[in-house]
Amino acid sequence: MLEIEQKFQISDKSQLLAQLEQIGATQGSPLDQEDFYFAHPSRNFVETDEALRIRRIGTENHITYKGPKRATVSKIRKEIELAFEAGPAALSQLKEMLELLGFQPVRNVKKQRTPYSFQHNQRHFEITIDEVEGLGTFAEVETLAEEAELEQAEAAVIQLAGQLGLSSSIRTSYLGMLMQQEESHGAD
Amino acid sequence: MLEIEQKFQISDKSQLLAQLEQIGATQGSPLDQEDFYFAHPSRNFVETDEALRIRRIGTENHITYKGPKRATVSKIRKEIELAFEAGPAALSQLKEMLELLGFQPVRNVKKQRTPYSFQHNQRHFEITIDEVEGLGTFAEVETLAEEAELEQAEAAVIQLAGQLGLSSSIRTSYLGMLMQQEESHGAD
Repeated sequence: MLEIEQKFQISDKSQLLAQLEQIGATQGSPLDQEDFYFAHPSRNFVETDEALRIRRIGTENHITYKGPKRATVSKIRKEIELAFEAGPAALSQLKEMLELLGFQPVRNVKKQRTPYSFQHNQRHFEITIDEVEGLGTFAEVETLAEEAELEQAEAAVIQLAGQLGLSSSIRTSYLGMLMQQEESHGAD
Repeated sequence: MLEIEQKFQISDKSQLLAQLEQIGATQGSPLDQEDFYFAHPSRNFVETDEALRIRRIGTENHITYKGPKRATVSKIRKEIELAFEAGPAALSQLKEMLELLGFQPVRNVKKQRTPYSFQHNQRHFEITIDEVEGLGTFAEVETLAEEAELEQAEAAVIQLAGQLGLSSSIRTSYLGMLMQQEESHGAD
């Protein structure tokens, strides 16, 4: 499956919450997420625009590969995500396995994620509000699609974002933003 | 944990079964196992003596990293094994993820494994009888140990193997044997 996603910085969260209520989006439970990003042993993921991460959601663990971004307006990319054994012991074992295979830990991203789901024209959307440690509040509008319905799905994401009053989408990942911040702060 | 293992080719399986019964080993359910081995994107696992594999046991899926073998008599090596989502869809997704990360599929090893467990002097042993497709019948005697009790654990494995009438242990992996066989058969 392909992931089609737009991301926005949020200055007025209460306004977005009002819009979500107005369209009838369903709020899910807030999730405590921590992402651990890794560098490839022989490929520069910054240049290839790929990502490999372990995501902890509460005590659940997932491994996720993200392929290069494709489209210009939204983020469209291949994503493979698989759950593995839960708990902190399994998490540190998978980290160790990746490091033994030559994947280097880059940094982690911690956030509180509140998911909202929304169904429109037989399409399922996920809207998430993220409170990202060190970065602030963001919203993502996302859907999944097969190759054949890609254009239609992208148009639907753009339309829904507009309806929610979201504009000026951001293409940089949280990881990228945090690393830019580190660079600009120098040795801080 | 470290895995300490000795492996033997079996010509007379009924004799081994009689020995297992005599020492009071407990038979487990036979398992249908399939291992998918991968080559590293930038390291030669044959030279570094490491292995990365996906193991399917029935419909369950595991990923396993094996570090270089250390001792001379037994096989002693670091092993990290983690379960991930079950079922054929998750299996093919993890294969795809590894391939997208540059890990190349080498070949698979299919076997029917019958495990026996045995407790002796507060130590747990696993003895397995493997019917390996294309290779024949083998037995493995294995225990797990922390670094500090390594010598003691290795001596216990050697002793148990002797007690079971097993001699001339083999250090080559099933994968290695199958690849040697392929080479010697040329283009067959």
